[in-house]
Parts: sequence; C-alpha cells; structure tokens
Amino acid sequence: MKIRNHKLTVSYDGTLFKGWQIQANPATVQGHLERVLARCWGERITLHGSGRTDSGVHADAQIAHFKAAAKFKSLSALQAALNHHLPPQIRVTRAQYADDDFHARFSAKGKEYRYRICNHPFQDPFEINRSWHIPRPLNITEMKKAARLFVGEHDFASFTSNPGYARATTVRRVTHVSVSVNGPLITVSVRGAGFLYRMVRNIVGALVTVGLGRLTASETRQILNAKCRGVAPNTAPAHGLYLHKVFYKTAAQRTPSKQSQKLS
Amino acid sequence: MKIRNHKLTVSYDGTLFKGWQIQANPATVQGHLERVLARCWGERITLHGSGRTDSGVHADAQIAHFKAAAKFKSLSALQAALNHHLPPQIRVTRAQYADDDFHARFSAKGKEYRYRICNHPFQDPFEINRSWHIPRPLNITEMKKAARLFVGEHDFASFTSNPGYARATTVRRVTHVSVSVNGPLITVSVRGAGFLYRMVRNIVGALVTVGLGRLTASETRQILNAKCRGVAPNTAPAHGLYLHKVFYKTAAQRTPSKQSQKLS
Repeated sequence: MKIRNHKLTVSYDGTLFKGWQIQANPATVQGHLERVLARCWGERITLHGSGRTDSGVHADAQIAHFKAAAKFKSLSALQAALNHHLPPQIRVTRAQYADDDFHARFSAKGKEYRYRICNHPFQDPFEINRSWHIPRPLNITEMKKAARLFVGEHDFASFTSNPGYARATTVRRVTHVSVSVNGPLITVSVRGAGFLYRMVRNIVGALVTVGLGRLTASETRQILNAKCRGVAPNTAPAHGLYLHKVFYKTAAQRTPSKQSQKLS
Repeated sequence: MKIRNHKLTVSYDGTLFKGWQIQANPATVQGHLERVLARCWGERITLHGSGRTDSGVHADAQIAHFKAAAKFKSLSALQAALNHHLPPQIRVTRAQYADDDFHARFSAKGKEYRYRICNHPFQDPFEINRSWHIPRPLNITEMKKAARLFVGEHDFASFTSNPGYARATTVRRVTHVSVSVNGPLITVSVRGAGFLYRMVRNIVGALVTVGLGRLTASETRQILNAKCRGVAPNTAPAHGLYLHKVFYKTAAQRTPSKQSQKLS
C-alpha cells in the first residue's frame, strides 16, 4: 500500500493541555493526535509539528505531518474520524496530502504569532484564558514605537528564556511586528523566520512594560543591545499567545540541504 | 445612614453557573452576588435582577439593583470590591446610583437577547459553550424570511416551554428579530417588551430547523398560529444565548401603577 504524506492544520484552545509536545503525561496536543492516529491506523504513527507550543498557548493553525498508508476513502473522512475521537478543544481544520519531501518543521520558512491583550479595568468574563488582562491603560503610540525596534535581524538573547538546550545562535530575523487595537482588545502580531524559546512572550512583556510607561522605546533598544535576559522585563503569560500561521517554502525552495536549517 | 438604590450591570459566562436565580445550591449568579454583598455590608442584602437566565445562558449586560446604605467611598471602589470577591466568570461592568423607584425588573420596558450559532463543518475550539454548533450549512435567506414572522404582537404559546408557574397570557410583543452573518458565526437578535420562558431559544430552534430545510417559513407561521408547544421544533441549547441588553423606562414613564406589569 502506498505511503502518503499527510498534512494537518490543527486549531486548539491550549488551556487544558500541557503544550504541544508529547510527554509521559499524555495531556498534550501532539499526544492526543498520536493517540487518535494510532487508534485509526492500528499502529503507532509519528506526527511532526511545525514546532512546540508551551502549556496554555493556543493555535489558530498549527501544522503537522505524518506518513502512513491512505486508510480512509477521502481526506474529509480522515478529518471527520480524527475530530470524532479528539477532545473538542482540538480540531483538525484541514487535512491534505503533501509532497513526500514536505516536513512540517523543516519546510517552514516562517511563522506568525498573535498575542491578545484585554486592556480594560475589569476582565471580560469571555476573555478568561484567551488574553492577558491589563487593567491599567496602555500607551499604544509608545508600544508601536517600541514594536518597530524588533523588526530586522537582531541578536534576541535578551528576549529568550532559558531554553534548556544549547542553540547555535540567538540571532533571528523578525519581518513584522504590529500592535492593533479593537475596543479593549489589543493584538500584537509578530512574524519571523524563526523564534527562540519564549521570544514572542518576552517581546510582548517588554511592549506592555512600555505601554504602562515603565520603560521607554530607547531603553527597549538598550535591552535588545545588551543581549542579556536578566535586564529585560518579565515574560507575558502563555494564555494570550496564539500560533496564528506557519509559512512554507514552495516545492522548488525545498532542497535536502535546507533541511538542516533548524526552526524552533 | 441614607439608603441608596444601587444599579449594577453584570456580565457573565454562564457555563459554570446554575442560572441567575438564587437556589439552595449557591452556584448561581445571583447567589454569588448576594454572597459578596453580604460580605461587603456585613448583613444580608437582597438583589433584584431584570429577570432569570437559565443554567448555561450568558449575559453581556444583566441589570440588577439593591438598596443599602452607601458603604464605599465611591461607586468605582464598590465595583472593584465586588469584582475582587466574585469569581472571574462574573464581572460587575458598571455600578451606578439609581432613583429610589428604579426596579431592575419592573422598570424594564424591554430586552434584547442574542443567540450565537457556529455554522461550520467542525466546531471552532474557541466557541465551545459560547455558541450552538450546526455542522450542516444553513439557508440564511429562509431563516431571515421566517424571522420576520415573529415580529409584532403574537400569542407565543407554541414557543414557550413549560414555565412551572401560571401566567395570565402568552401574548407578547416582539419588536425586532434579525439574523446576521459574520464568517461562520450567525447571530440571531431578538428584542421585545417581554419574553415567555425559553421563548428566544424556541424561536431560534425553529429558525435553525428552517435553515436546515426541514421546515418552511409558511409552516413556521402555522406553528405560531397553532398556539401549541407540541407542534414546534426543539429548543435551542442554552449555551448559545446571551442576555444582551435591558431597556428601561425613563423616570417620567415609571409610575407606581406600572409596577404591576410583569416582565419575565
């Protein structure tokens, strides 16, 4: 039977899960998906995600792939079967066949994260675990000014938390940072070629500190230049963060040599 | 000490509560509010809501009043104290002083409810307990046609569930019904001078049956004319319903004789 490469788009409310990556504790998103794949195929199937998300972090469109013989009569039948067995907090929003050399992690050329902040004296009951509640008013103009500092190729050592593993470099290219306002809801969007551990949450932590008037844009630049986590403001909480989109190379851009280029 | 009439605007995610009205089981919204008022004032205080909401039903802006001596140095201090002691799923979004004759229930001249439907093959993980998931496509044109039938003064006997108490009449005046679409989200808004028990959920149950092509607009009219609950479609689930707004008479419109006019 022909082995097909399956590409899944997955949305999840991360509140109840211990993040994406499979652990001894099965309450992870990858753990649930692999459990359901094993149930459908009758054998263990390894799922590869575009990257980890931390405990409590959400996804609008996480991407994952797995290789297996075509088992269902259609992709929509596969999608329906997976959703039937998954907890409702995890939904496969799209199932596709991908080229054999497509890899959810190594074929990615970038990602967009969104961070939601509820800026209102009292937290909206419908925003619990969905956004970071900041009761004091935020200065959006200053936040936008500071946001622009992060765009470009920088050493983000001041904006990564202890990763627990060695990495070659803390230089990353950020292509877009925006701060948009819709009533009490403030959304920070960050796009980049790759991200360090907790980089988006650390950037948002700094932007909110700027918005509260406790840090200036020029001090933010000094923190970036210091390349030292110890001088930077606190990390924003996990429950405001959403993996919004993963961008992929075209088939022509995917070559074996590129696969060694790591994305975290 | 001068007794003041306090008016509260309350938003709640009804998922965890056994509805609005106080019961032996304290896990109701009114129960939580009265517990916190008693804690702040050191004595039992009776809170009057604009009306009940069922278990699982939400509120954007429920209105309630209570009479008590002014205890806090400002209304914002009162609001902050209440929110401090309330579960985060219940928020006092506004605290005001009202005229002595203001009554959250008897001074109301109407209400607006909103009902959210998520019309998509797979339920959005972020819509669990926030909307009614309808996987099959809904015919919005037919739903809008049927919605118009409910506007005006009608005997809504076919659209009330067993109320558990006697009522003088099942005639009610509905001033507005609309069906609006925003991506997969369909919102039904219903405004009226008063509502029977489960009337909005029964209207939405009929509109969705129309949208699924299992009932025509003209059959919906026959069901309304039949004045018999047994011939009508099922009740829509509680978790899609939001008490959106309560409309009040002006001080000039509030006279003691009007207070006998009941709103449920």
